[in-house]
Amino acid sequence: MAKKASKTKKAAGAGPSKPVKLSGKAAVTAKKIEGMAESIAAAALKKRSPAFSIPLRALSNVRFDPKKAIIEMGNSKQSREFFDLSMARKFMQTILIASKFKQLISEGKTASIRQLYYLSKHDVAGTKEKTFNDQDESDPIIEDIEVTIDALREELHVYADNRGNLAGPITLVDEGNELDCMRMGSAGYAVPSIVEPDVIQFKRCSAKFVLHVEKGTVWRRFYEDRFHEKHQCILTHGQGQPARGMRRLLRRLRDELKLPIYCLLDNDPWGYYIYSVIKQGSINLAYESNRMAVPDAKFIGVSSFDYERCNLSDDVKIGLDATDIKRAKQILAYPWFKGKKHWEREINKMMSNGFKMEVEAMSNKRLTYLTDEYVPMKLADKRQWLD
Amino acid sequence: MAKKASKTKKAAGAGPSKPVKLSGKAAVTAKKIEGMAESIAAAALKKRSPAFSIPLRALSNVRFDPKKAIIEMGNSKQSREFFDLSMARKFMQTILIASKFKQLISEGKTASIRQLYYLSKHDVAGTKEKTFNDQDESDPIIEDIEVTIDALREELHVYADNRGNLAGPITLVDEGNELDCMRMGSAGYAVPSIVEPDVIQFKRCSAKFVLHVEKGTVWRRFYEDRFHEKHQCILTHGQGQPARGMRRLLRRLRDELKLPIYCLLDNDPWGYYIYSVIKQGSINLAYESNRMAVPDAKFIGVSSFDYERCNLSDDVKIGLDATDIKRAKQILAYPWFKGKKHWEREINKMMSNGFKMEVEAMSNKRLTYLTDEYVPMKLADKRQWLD
Repeated sequence: MAKKASKTKKAAGAGPSKPVKLSGKAAVTAKKIEGMAESIAAAALKKRSPAFSIPLRALSNVRFDPKKAIIEMGNSKQSREFFDLSMARKFMQTILIASKFKQLISEGKTASIRQLYYLSKHDVAGTKEKTFNDQDESDPIIEDIEVTIDALREELHVYADNRGNLAGPITLVDEGNELDCMRMGSAGYAVPSIVEPDVIQFKRCSAKFVLHVEKGTVWRRFYEDRFHEKHQCILTHGQGQPARGMRRLLRRLRDELKLPIYCLLDNDPWGYYIYSVIKQGSINLAYESNRMAVPDAKFIGVSSFDYERCNLSDDVKIGLDATDIKRAKQILAYPWFKGKKHWEREINKMMSNGFKMEVEAMSNKRLTYLTDEYVPMKLADKRQWLD
Repeated sequence: MAKKASKTKKAAGAGPSKPVKLSGKAAVTAKKIEGMAESIAAAALKKRSPAFSIPLRALSNVRFDPKKAIIEMGNSKQSREFFDLSMARKFMQTILIASKFKQLISEGKTASIRQLYYLSKHDVAGTKEKTFNDQDESDPIIEDIEVTIDALREELHVYADNRGNLAGPITLVDEGNELDCMRMGSAGYAVPSIVEPDVIQFKRCSAKFVLHVEKGTVWRRFYEDRFHEKHQCILTHGQGQPARGMRRLLRRLRDELKLPIYCLLDNDPWGYYIYSVIKQGSINLAYESNRMAVPDAKFIGVSSFDYERCNLSDDVKIGLDATDIKRAKQILAYPWFKGKKHWEREINKMMSNGFKMEVEAMSNKRLTYLTDEYVPMKLADKRQWLD
């Protein structure tokens, strides 16, 4: 995306479809797409069946690398051939979406996956058949191309919904504007969907760590209590399971600024799951873990042992239901939890407790217990962290 | 909320529970809560049964005022008495929550409804009974108090999730920080949950109108295409049905800056419904319409007639299902749609079309058709607006 470099300076003047001169990452990504096209053309010219090989996105080709501590793809590939009735439609769709990516990059534009679907949907020439009947057809093609040319979706100029906010002692540059995240208003800096280095740069940072919470309502508790000032940290939340932009930003904060990432999540299977997505990546998007996952993120609470440890009252208990227990067992069986004694203790303890606890339940002691006692206690005692 | 005035200057130094001196709106709201308490005490001292009368929040007490064009509450009230077995528990809960509101205001703190629930949950002295068993018990009590003392939830220092973003030629002051919404980063200014005048002030504004869209992905299309610069407007989205903060902000932009509010939503029952919530308020929260609804908001599209009007291809059609049709009929029967010929035409046309259309479907022509042709055409022709 040379978008920032080439567009923010010209601002409104630039027409919507004038190609911009590509440089940096955008040029690299565009080249990769051209490479795909060239190999197809070359095969055709040699009178061979045009084809490309796509890394297999299936559970069978996903593995957990305990050393890197992330979920990764294996080496299996599938061939997608033009002269094969069962593949011809997908072949056409792949080329079509790839050409749209190229166009977006050349024009310095981005699109949502929904816009991309509509943009690519039309009658196949001379027929009444549609190129795509549904977005369920175009989304997997987007992923196929991502993995084939090893480009993040964001590098292909595709954006998702933006979710999540950030506040703390960091100054970012976003689209050329310097933003002091201590002074971005009472909801903080809105984390966009695309946070690649050519859009967002880190300018100054005096934060010592990042505290990530699940929800905006919890985030606001910390923000209002000035936790980020007292503890010199960045506060983030993802409005539930963090969107791609937030995950990628956490990874960049960890890689480029060497900030530790601490997660404060509910003591329930959903909290564990959110943590594992931040830390190891997800099975669906295993091929992106290398650039999205934060393998050394720490889970600092709420832990199943905190009920006794913190002398909480039974007001905070929420009984586990059958779904919780089923989900907890599934999570225990994930390779990235399995065999980790501290996680087995944690999850088994939740099941023997028979209840789960929310971060917001800490308000039961008093409104600011969470921010002035509970989390400081957690931060001070590494033995309580789950890794 | 004198929070801003009294807190941002002291910043981190202020202890979490030191009462702040109340002024302005916060003093007024605190006084109202004290008034509730005083009337109870006065009744007790006179050996009368302590009671207060609460406006009835039920469909039977909600009406549509066609003149003001908002949903309003009627005048029915119910008495909540202490010496009545069927009401004693709710009486206790009401006093308890009211005292928490008072405490929040005095300490210059805010809390989520979930935090408020946990904060208020404990054993009733000398029993094993809980003050609240569930948040389903505390939420209606919050609403009872809001309506009884005629204070918005935000004035009682209660916040909701924040959702939605804003960009455009307006400079806001949020917690004392001046924010130029043309330079807030690529996701825009994050609209907080509490946007009352003591937290957020409008400093400068050269916008001519507000364009409100449903989703972040549509918002980004406009933002990236610099629609807000070309048309000198504020772009907002609510991430689905707009949260309280966004609705209240739209209302303030309309009241204080006299900006027209234009809504661009999907051509489906959900789009109509979002529009009606922005415009008239919701049935549940009818008592807030006076300060949340935007009765002169306009629906500028997508209209059922646009398929022919804009010569769209059948790629954009999404077939209506039974739920859509049921919902459309319900909406037609709402008093604020019923009898409006243009709305009846619009909704009936959708049903006779047999399909619905999304805003993002406009990408089918070309990516920027929406922003450089469709919406400018809509803005230029008032006859196409639905009111």
